[in-house]
Amino acid sequence: MNNAVGFESALDGYRQRVDAALKERLPPQGNTNTPLESAMRYATLSGGKRVRPVLIYATGEALNASADALDVLACSIEFMHAYTLVHDDLPSMDDDDLRRGVPTCHIKYGEAQAILAGDALQALAFTTLASSLRGLLPDSTILQMIELFGQASGVNGMAAGQAIDLQSVGQALTLEELEAMHRLKTGALIKASTLLGALCSPEVDDTILASLREYGDAIGMAFQVADDILDVVGDTQVLGKQQGADIALNKPTFPAIMGLERARDYASQQRDRALDAIAPLDNQFDLLRQLAIYVVNRTC
Amino acid sequence: MNNAVGFESALDGYRQRVDAALKERLPPQGNTNTPLESAMRYATLSGGKRVRPVLIYATGEALNASADALDVLACSIEFMHAYTLVHDDLPSMDDDDLRRGVPTCHIKYGEAQAILAGDALQALAFTTLASSLRGLLPDSTILQMIELFGQASGVNGMAAGQAIDLQSVGQALTLEELEAMHRLKTGALIKASTLLGALCSPEVDDTILASLREYGDAIGMAFQVADDILDVVGDTQVLGKQQGADIALNKPTFPAIMGLERARDYASQQRDRALDAIAPLDNQFDLLRQLAIYVVNRTC
Repeated sequence: MNNAVGFESALDGYRQRVDAALKERLPPQGNTNTPLESAMRYATLSGGKRVRPVLIYATGEALNASADALDVLACSIEFMHAYTLVHDDLPSMDDDDLRRGVPTCHIKYGEAQAILAGDALQALAFTTLASSLRGLLPDSTILQMIELFGQASGVNGMAAGQAIDLQSVGQALTLEELEAMHRLKTGALIKASTLLGALCSPEVDDTILASLREYGDAIGMAFQVADDILDVVGDTQVLGKQQGADIALNKPTFPAIMGLERARDYASQQRDRALDAIAPLDNQFDLLRQLAIYVVNRTC
Repeated sequence: MNNAVGFESALDGYRQRVDAALKERLPPQGNTNTPLESAMRYATLSGGKRVRPVLIYATGEALNASADALDVLACSIEFMHAYTLVHDDLPSMDDDDLRRGVPTCHIKYGEAQAILAGDALQALAFTTLASSLRGLLPDSTILQMIELFGQASGVNGMAAGQAIDLQSVGQALTLEELEAMHRLKTGALIKASTLLGALCSPEVDDTILASLREYGDAIGMAFQVADDILDVVGDTQVLGKQQGADIALNKPTFPAIMGLERARDYASQQRDRALDAIAPLDNQFDLLRQLAIYVVNRTC
């Protein structure tokens, strides 16, 4: 396994790589003489941890997948993720003013343009897959990926999670209900990232996919528990978003349900579940191991 | 060419057919114990002229396309259309309270659920294509369709049109600018409908596609000019939406730019352009001819 410095530099490398690819694939500013393209670029390029692209790269490279195909997937998943952030931040949703250390999209561009930018980013996510993977992967694999993407993002995935989230404000959820919500809202796309990266490779088989499915589920949950903990103990400056926002909205969180210490233990358990899931895989997958540790230890 | 009664009954038949297919393909109510699925069904199943599905059926059947594939496409295009209506009606967009004779989605379900329902409908539109056409059409054709769909709906299509529309409130547009806006906002998906229907058939060739492209462009424009005229002379009860809404919002329209009579002439010119475009095609395409007349003469 690489040391911590090596891991950080691998993360940085992937982030720079996806940022460059995103800049190329986003529509140029001013095509329509409206703020639309600018709002789309702002929502996508204002930093971010790029956890989903990193998962795609790390999984795909462990399986010797095509670098070009991984770039396309990394962009698509960030378009999709960026759209959900823009819409989740809207006044009628979480009403957040700050994201990644800068004003949220609707604060900067107004609500209507922010809704539209999100809509156009979702369309771009799907269109990028359908147009830019052709020739790099078999057509049947691309269709399988678009279906997986749709499952993770729509009424069986993120949209459902957000609907449950909205309804859960002020409610006392059980741990099972909270997990079910986050499995849809955050987990589905994180899990899809590992699977998409793997599906890029002709080397993938059902055993590897099963391991990655379990790994993705576990680090999705670990990521969310860590997020909830950071909402309590984090620093707004470092987080880039308002610390205490969940508490202010009276949202159910892991620390609220089980207390801070038990929530920390729970995050560690999920990390260990992720590590166990890929224990049978070779050292090509070490970056995924380091990622499982990173998502729990991160400070932003 | 069939008589008027035959045409009306063909329209009704297609509407019933797409409604039945939509009911089957929409998520069942209550899956998430939130109003999400209910809002999606409400937005999609509250009537509507179903012009886009009718175009898909009429074009596809003229070319002996698979009936099952046409049903899938008709549903996808209505999911996409329904999502744009829900988002366009939002308070920060056109702020409409009435649609198809019933309260708009955000009036009935609240703004947050309406945004989410639109988001989930867009995802469903793409996912339905990727999952339900497999086996019915070649994978490469399905990918081509998803790309066409994305082009028509995203930053190069409807989303751009809506962005220009938002920016044009109170502006004096030229005829060319107004046309360019509607070519994106309404025209792109109407044109895509005729192309998608045709692409379902192995009988289609480049000559037919070129005719249909021109036809789709012309009836898209005819449809929009007629829409603008109905905003002036229509009846709220028959329209199912507020008559005079464009005027109230100070939106540029064809009657506002050129006066009512010249706008009527212009709609007729576009209808004739549509008819000319498909003049070389055989009488299998007669329903498209009747549709071109219908979109201009309609009262709602």
